[in-house]
Amino acid sequence: MIKVGIVGGTGYTGVELLRLLAAHPEVSLTAITSRQDAGKEVSHVFPNLRGQVALSFTDPQSTDLFACDLVFFATPNGIAMKEAPKLLERGVKVIDLAADFRIKDIALWQQWYGMEHTSPEWVKQAVYGLPEVNRAAIKTAQLVANPGCYPTAVQLAFIPLIKAGVVNTQNLIADAKSGVSGAGRKSEVHTLFSEASDNFKAYGASGHRHLPEISEQLSRYHDPEVNLIFTPHLTPLIRGIHATCYATLTAATDLQKLFEEHYAKEPFVDVMPFGSHPETRSVRASNLCRIALHQPQQGQTVVILSVIDNLVKGAAGQAVQNMNLMFGLPETLGLTQLPILP
Amino acid sequence: MIKVGIVGGTGYTGVELLRLLAAHPEVSLTAITSRQDAGKEVSHVFPNLRGQVALSFTDPQSTDLFACDLVFFATPNGIAMKEAPKLLERGVKVIDLAADFRIKDIALWQQWYGMEHTSPEWVKQAVYGLPEVNRAAIKTAQLVANPGCYPTAVQLAFIPLIKAGVVNTQNLIADAKSGVSGAGRKSEVHTLFSEASDNFKAYGASGHRHLPEISEQLSRYHDPEVNLIFTPHLTPLIRGIHATCYATLTAATDLQKLFEEHYAKEPFVDVMPFGSHPETRSVRASNLCRIALHQPQQGQTVVILSVIDNLVKGAAGQAVQNMNLMFGLPETLGLTQLPILP
Amino acid sequence: MIKVGIVGGTGYTGVELLRLLAAHPEVSLTAITSRQDAGKEVSHVFPNLRGQVALSFTDPQSTDLFACDLVFFATPNGIAMKEAPKLLERGVKVIDLAADFRIKDIALWQQWYGMEHTSPEWVKQAVYGLPEVNRAAIKTAQLVANPGCYPTAVQLAFIPLIKAGVVNTQNLIADAKSGVSGAGRKSEVHTLFSEASDNFKAYGASGHRHLPEISEQLSRYHDPEVNLIFTPHLTPLIRGIHATCYATLTAATDLQKLFEEHYAKEPFVDVMPFGSHPETRSVRASNLCRIALHQPQQGQTVVILSVIDNLVKGAAGQAVQNMNLMFGLPETLGLTQLPILP
Amino acid sequence: MIKVGIVGGTGYTGVELLRLLAAHPEVSLTAITSRQDAGKEVSHVFPNLRGQVALSFTDPQSTDLFACDLVFFATPNGIAMKEAPKLLERGVKVIDLAADFRIKDIALWQQWYGMEHTSPEWVKQAVYGLPEVNRAAIKTAQLVANPGCYPTAVQLAFIPLIKAGVVNTQNLIADAKSGVSGAGRKSEVHTLFSEASDNFKAYGASGHRHLPEISEQLSRYHDPEVNLIFTPHLTPLIRGIHATCYATLTAATDLQKLFEEHYAKEPFVDVMPFGSHPETRSVRASNLCRIALHQPQQGQTVVILSVIDNLVKGAAGQAVQNMNLMFGLPETLGLTQLPILP
Repeated sequence: MIKVGIVGGTGYTGVELLRLLAAHPEVSLTAITSRQDAGKEVSHVFPNLRGQVALSFTDPQSTDLFACDLVFFATPNGIAMKEAPKLLERGVKVIDLAADFRIKDIALWQQWYGMEHTSPEWVKQAVYGLPEVNRAAIKTAQLVANPGCYPTAVQLAFIPLIKAGVVNTQNLIADAKSGVSGAGRKSEVHTLFSEASDNFKAYGASGHRHLPEISEQLSRYHDPEVNLIFTPHLTPLIRGIHATCYATLTAATDLQKLFEEHYAKEPFVDVMPFGSHPETRSVRASNLCRIALHQPQQGQTVVILSVIDNLVKGAAGQAVQNMNLMFGLPETLGLTQLPILP
Repeated sequence: MIKVGIVGGTGYTGVELLRLLAAHPEVSLTAITSRQDAGKEVSHVFPNLRGQVALSFTDPQSTDLFACDLVFFATPNGIAMKEAPKLLERGVKVIDLAADFRIKDIALWQQWYGMEHTSPEWVKQAVYGLPEVNRAAIKTAQLVANPGCYPTAVQLAFIPLIKAGVVNTQNLIADAKSGVSGAGRKSEVHTLFSEASDNFKAYGASGHRHLPEISEQLSRYHDPEVNLIFTPHLTPLIRGIHATCYATLTAATDLQKLFEEHYAKEPFVDVMPFGSHPETRSVRASNLCRIALHQPQQGQTVVILSVIDNLVKGAAGQAVQNMNLMFGLPETLGLTQLPILP
Repeated sequence: MIKVGIVGGTGYTGVELLRLLAAHPEVSLTAITSRQDAGKEVSHVFPNLRGQVALSFTDPQSTDLFACDLVFFATPNGIAMKEAPKLLERGVKVIDLAADFRIKDIALWQQWYGMEHTSPEWVKQAVYGLPEVNRAAIKTAQLVANPGCYPTAVQLAFIPLIKAGVVNTQNLIADAKSGVSGAGRKSEVHTLFSEASDNFKAYGASGHRHLPEISEQLSRYHDPEVNLIFTPHLTPLIRGIHATCYATLTAATDLQKLFEEHYAKEPFVDVMPFGSHPETRSVRASNLCRIALHQPQQGQTVVILSVIDNLVKGAAGQAVQNMNLMFGLPETLGLTQLPILP
Repeated sequence: MIKVGIVGGTGYTGVELLRLLAAHPEVSLTAITSRQDAGKEVSHVFPNLRGQVALSFTDPQSTDLFACDLVFFATPNGIAMKEAPKLLERGVKVIDLAADFRIKDIALWQQWYGMEHTSPEWVKQAVYGLPEVNRAAIKTAQLVANPGCYPTAVQLAFIPLIKAGVVNTQNLIADAKSGVSGAGRKSEVHTLFSEASDNFKAYGASGHRHLPEISEQLSRYHDPEVNLIFTPHLTPLIRGIHATCYATLTAATDLQKLFEEHYAKEPFVDVMPFGSHPETRSVRASNLCRIALHQPQQGQTVVILSVIDNLVKGAAGQAVQNMNLMFGLPETLGLTQLPILP
């Protein structure tokens, strides 16, 4: 049994980790911290866990996490870079679900996240936790930077094309739509029900923090760096990301075959028949990414539709997938629940 | 392995049965019929099942169900009473998720359902499938009438009080609210998104088919027959029933103790602390019923709040619970997924 | 033109007042204050008002409201009782949309609102602003206490029955459901989209502040005081209240005739045909209350269904209706927009 | 007073026309037809109109529309081309809210709409009813083809750029999102609440009927024909279209100035400050289109965000705007209600 701790468990990423880990046959939940809710029973904050999770939140200062084999950071950006190194130095493995270790270019990170990075040396050692790309490195990693939700959906859409060298990388567009849970469980006006329901809007259209993450990752396959336009939108659903990605073809390609072969062995990527329209609900509460391809009017533009559950494949599920890899477990262990529909 | 067939699998009850049975360790899904979708792959109609359910829908006429150990009827009212007897006579067990075998009083059934009953003899033999009431009889039943969704939520709220004889049974009120999936997957105007979202309404306030079912069942414990006012409402959520039940106390009682003791051994009934407010999402996609009690102004009225997922404890999950009982399996087998929140 | 000021204009009541007053032919919007948003343009906070409302929010301390003919308080409870008396003493008329002047029994108010009342003398002079009951008094009032949203829907449902003396007033039940905008525009976790959507729950089932307001008002017609059970619920819609009210008949009555005659001259109360089911969307964005009656199984229980838009007839619209009465204008002026459906 | 008839009034376009026309000071509603609901009171089908619209639906065959000054066709595609010519020949003015007269290229129309066009001669005479483009021609038109909802939002976003000749017209992308009311009030499975809520999906990504309409119109300003990728999506809101439009700049331009000057005199187009994010709810129930511009990373791609209410500026409101122009009335008459927020 893997002894697992969670730092910062009162957000949606935290409750989703709890849901998945409570049912995971190889995990023993040891501690879960929360500054604001210390002392409260987990099941009081998250009534879906009544009778299933007996833990209470504890104060991070007074919690001994060194006894854990693995600690998940489900904290706001800027916490893990300060708190994780102590654990890492004592041999504890860490998966950070925030952005602290996602971007190798420290200056770029500091520019987008508006703070100084306090542990750039660990950024170097961190492995970017997208298993479909970095499986081998994740298996031996001590520190995994769990990808952002948008970056997961967008990268899985573009990677086969970029790796195959069949699109113009200077002209990529990702028009992405997210459910409101992506904004977290913070009390804010713009994500109130009465603000966010029966409404649709773009945000960060001039620049969003997930852009440099996606660009850096996609540029690993290509020189010069890719040029991506990324437009996120808020849509009135709880869970789900739908990325509509556009690229210009530079070579004749059997697109469907390219994707099917690329993802043939991936347990969590489903390439649907050409011309399909994946729905976010078709992956709700599961770790799947479903992808479908279109080539409108048989022209030079390929449209890639990609859907994930932002809290699962876009956060907690992918983190558990990474944990399975890091501990030599079957990659799908604890992640085989079917999507909930309707 | 239990060989299972499903008749009429294209509604929400059907897809929920498929989701639960596909993950059930003792079930082998053998056949699923649909008149309208015969020939289509199940995963084409329900994209959440892609890669998990390999079956295609078959025409009911050309499907051999006699080889099944158990057949679920997820059909509209009036089908099972015609089709199930053939199977029953050949020794196949049947669970009907529609209303055909729920009401013992045939004349009453015919009045509310507007058709003649074609197999009243099987109504006599049918066991009403509310395990919290009829567990022993279900274990040996050949035919189980799976309760309605409202009746499940309302009965679990009232039964401890009525059995204990501490309320006036001539003055019961059940003000119940259902998510829209309770209306099924039929194409109708009043359940369109643009009609049912951002809207709230009562329906059937002068009389609803679930009233005689609830009344007949609650009257088993009492003479004369109970007098119940039942007001159903449509609320803009997909899954969930919230029953707000009112009764007048006739004797001083420790209400909380009464409920906790009554349901102490029930795996799927959670009696919350006195004064709690159960949320429908706290049971979403699970087989749980959560109940909480209030006694406003310490007066004579007790308010019982009861929530279920109408598609699980209110339909498919309860059917699987009944199946487990009928086949001597652990009652919770295949039903332990945690509720999905948010 | 009436010179109008609004104190505390950044909540939903405030923006709804602005929407109605900006289009009102006899109103000149003079000032709108907000501590937190002072200096911001109104249309920056509420983009629906771009190009229609040129005002900016000003700090309450530095705003001269004495030049106004009328000031609306759209503030949290406890503000108007401190700030309104200064204006009242200088002859300014005041409509308070909060609870400060709604309850005549000061001790009772203090118990439910958890603070000391600082101007009990003005409570005595305040007129409870439900025009269907107090029209004459409102016309000459200097201070109007605008009713709560739930109390408006519930009182309009019960009043004809209680006034006619045909129901048992010791056994009233109001099971009420509110859209989320009723909780205001405060940043709180429980009203976040991801918490409140796809969910249904009761709250305050053991006691809610609107209970004493309703009870005090309904008891004006009756001795002894009425006994009411009031259970509010949160339902995932933006606007709308649906009250399902239950009373036990004590005398044979033509219920439909009673209601139709009672409300025959009311411009904003629509008595629907017997057995109808009013929908909240049928009054969305309008000042209407629609009511329908049921008598299930022709028994002794009458069920009254009553719907309003909580932000209009339950708040800002009723306030404008009161303003019209106070200034001798046609009662419906500026309030004749048709409900928005779908 | 203009005597107005509506053919096919039971859809969402119909009820929205009724809402706007019932409050229009220069309109006398004369007749409204419906095959399926003939004989029913309008207010029975649309309860928001109770007490406001006294008409009943009449059968189209037995309704004399020749006495009307203007007839709106709110019918499915393919009806107006058959029924309108009779009226037009007798001098009645016609506004078709369906697609029958929108596309000048008859062969193209037939290909996308899958039927033979029965009155190509009237297509020639029809004026495409986008007032911001065709105001002068609309004023003298007898037959106006009211634009589609997507085409309205997308054209208003692209036109200033194309007319100014500052973008590459061979590389336009319109990623558009629509509320569910855009699919109409037909009973269909995919627009049921339980299918369309808490879900997001693209549809018609390989080709949608609004593509040729937009392309034909945008190509009026340019040779050769524009090349547009158009991807519609279904998002869980009732009303609203959000178009996210992408174009590649070919010349240095002050984009904000270009748009502000282009739309300076337009009463229903609001160019927001550069870098804004218009929300669909900011135009809910109003005839406004709000537009905002972004130039991510100061690169060559301009992103234009454009929002409308699909039932108002995208259908009924624009039709009333056209009516005002055709009858010499002030263009904004009856269209000045403020948007509803929240």
